[in-house]
Amino acid sequence: MPATPFERAISLDAADPLAVYRERFVGSLASSTEPVLAYLDGNSLGRPLKSTAARLAAFVTDSWGDRLIRGWDEEWLQLPTTIGDELARATLGAAPGQTLIGDSTTVLLYKVIRAALDARPGRTEIIVDSDNFPTDRYLVEGIAAERALTVRWVETSRRSGLTADLLAAALSEQTAVVVASHVAYRSGYLADVPALTRLAHDAGALIVWDLCHSAGSVETRLDDWGVDLAVGCTYKYLNGGPGSPAFAYVRRDLLGELRQPIWGWLGHADPFAMGPGYTPAPGIRSFQSGTPPVIGMLAMRDMIALIGEVGVEAVRAKSVALTSFTIELADEVLAPYGVEVASPRASAERGSHVTLDHPDFREIVAELWRGGVVPDFRAPEGLRVGLSPLSTSFTEVAVGIAAVRDALERRAA
Amino acid sequence: MPATPFERAISLDAADPLAVYRERFVGSLASSTEPVLAYLDGNSLGRPLKSTAARLAAFVTDSWGDRLIRGWDEEWLQLPTTIGDELARATLGAAPGQTLIGDSTTVLLYKVIRAALDARPGRTEIIVDSDNFPTDRYLVEGIAAERALTVRWVETSRRSGLTADLLAAALSEQTAVVVASHVAYRSGYLADVPALTRLAHDAGALIVWDLCHSAGSVETRLDDWGVDLAVGCTYKYLNGGPGSPAFAYVRRDLLGELRQPIWGWLGHADPFAMGPGYTPAPGIRSFQSGTPPVIGMLAMRDMIALIGEVGVEAVRAKSVALTSFTIELADEVLAPYGVEVASPRASAERGSHVTLDHPDFREIVAELWRGGVVPDFRAPEGLRVGLSPLSTSFTEVAVGIAAVRDALERRAA
Repeated sequence: MPATPFERAISLDAADPLAVYRERFVGSLASSTEPVLAYLDGNSLGRPLKSTAARLAAFVTDSWGDRLIRGWDEEWLQLPTTIGDELARATLGAAPGQTLIGDSTTVLLYKVIRAALDARPGRTEIIVDSDNFPTDRYLVEGIAAERALTVRWVETSRRSGLTADLLAAALSEQTAVVVASHVAYRSGYLADVPALTRLAHDAGALIVWDLCHSAGSVETRLDDWGVDLAVGCTYKYLNGGPGSPAFAYVRRDLLGELRQPIWGWLGHADPFAMGPGYTPAPGIRSFQSGTPPVIGMLAMRDMIALIGEVGVEAVRAKSVALTSFTIELADEVLAPYGVEVASPRASAERGSHVTLDHPDFREIVAELWRGGVVPDFRAPEGLRVGLSPLSTSFTEVAVGIAAVRDALERRAA
Repeated sequence: MPATPFERAISLDAADPLAVYRERFVGSLASSTEPVLAYLDGNSLGRPLKSTAARLAAFVTDSWGDRLIRGWDEEWLQLPTTIGDELARATLGAAPGQTLIGDSTTVLLYKVIRAALDARPGRTEIIVDSDNFPTDRYLVEGIAAERALTVRWVETSRRSGLTADLLAAALSEQTAVVVASHVAYRSGYLADVPALTRLAHDAGALIVWDLCHSAGSVETRLDDWGVDLAVGCTYKYLNGGPGSPAFAYVRRDLLGELRQPIWGWLGHADPFAMGPGYTPAPGIRSFQSGTPPVIGMLAMRDMIALIGEVGVEAVRAKSVALTSFTIELADEVLAPYGVEVASPRASAERGSHVTLDHPDFREIVAELWRGGVVPDFRAPEGLRVGLSPLSTSFTEVAVGIAAVRDALERRAA
């Protein structure tokens, strides 16, 4: 008799070399009045590491409370680039001096897109795909409106993403900037960053990569891939906490050329001279505007360090194993109820989440949450199974799929 | 024999009805390897409240760690306006629904200035004064450059600020927007907000008030004063911690009219529909762009609650007493060494810090820091004594002034 989903999950967990790291995250069974049996939304908000609560409390008392204003000179002013470099080394594949922590993803995308446009004067089009994340689309709309540019929409399927063929057909000598996601937020489609970057460059355009849904779970080699600009989120697979600041990468040789539009004191070459006239700082610091959000950027350090310790290749391997197991169970257990896999079946084309489609999933996700199984829902009918590799077990996947099956079964009965 | 400065300070502390609140702040004598005897820079970075370390640690474990993604729907998505309204009630003098927490001061200023300019099409000038805070000046420069507008600089003295006469002389039918600070960051000059706002309105312009150096220490009645737009900082007198998010106020009747340029998903009327096309949210939420910086906005709640408990009139009364005592001691103890008071002598024209000028102050401030007396330095020769009313004692002022005198005495010897 073949092994049941739960038996296979238990075997996979037992053989998982990364299983030992799960205990470093704040669990919920002991502390919660409403236990989370299966947390399948670490792609939206990663669990905190256990070390994070103490890190924040110690910061308040020992750093902020004790060093007071002196903390800025002693450490905090450097944190956006210190942590940026830690992130670059642990998971982005970027040499130091090109990565900055700050603002939100939306604000950093605004800055880098505006800067990229200024570097391609005379060109009239911004390319973005119809299934890119909402903030990317809305931003591009707003920037195009203010600059009298045209948005060239690439129609992408919500079950796939921006392929090289689709991009090639949209590019022209009018393309100033392409805005694309490394991992599509609905399908989980993993774009071929080096290929698409080359296509954009061949057309004389710059490309801005949104790494929100990949950073920390997918191997990324920004320097090797010739990426121009990238922005990403730190509260998903980087476990920085709700609304933690974003990061931006600007390739070294573009740093002298690009200029972002929000001129603030901490992007100035000599902020504390407080003199007349804005002179941008050299290097990545020119992409700073206001005072760095220090408290907000502390939590991610724990996860960045852990990813560095484990190695991003091992993280990616577990991610592939988790998404593959999810698809295997969906085919076996949920397909009979009409559930379809809406994510790429080839693991090389897939990030760290799997979306399953069914017309009843909006209601079913709400039911699942009440029962302690927490994936999320994305319109029109997608149940997203997010698989944060270091904090998620194969057993959680099996619990989640079984709960979905039970919900579908109740409807069929 | 008249009482010495220390004797007077001790009497003032003994009679201070707000002295009892000092023990609620993280002190430094017990925990520090380098004790701060006199912290006179709460205008740059307020001390943490003792409750804040526990608040942050509990958030990580009980809210983020336990509620996980469900926390957004249950509480966090509302926090920018919930805390905004708490702030509005405690100290801004604003009715609910007009105040938002998020981004940095610089980014929020960028948004409101851009929105204000769009509401005054055809007008060609932005007015800002030459001694306004650097970020305000740099931002205005950058915005004027991108919009082909003219910056009309008002020359203000670094010992005073933007008076009604100076503004009246600069305003014209070409003025689109005025950017002004409520309290000047160097002199501490307290602008007459209602009078300057009326002048701007009489010229058909909008006025953006920077409340960074006043919020939490000076009575403010934004609604009564007819203020259009205001932005301020939460890590000074609101004790939100290094780089905590800023706040923006947009007067209710402008909310339907003004549109900010950074279109992100959380400024959308229906963010989780994730549909095509940007439709701004109704109300103050349209000034949001990215995901709210939740962890960063927690600490300020402790101080906002405390100001609400004490009452901003009482806070302002202690602020005036502290700045008055500082000036009294400077005249008595430091003037013989050539120190000049560079702040307004009339308390009605003064915020909560006092700047003292002397050519040796750059070096002396560095010496003072090493000795545990922590004011700050502002070029060209200003020693800034910041007096955060709820956490600063009159004795700290006396200690600080005595330390300055000793440093000057050593030089004279």
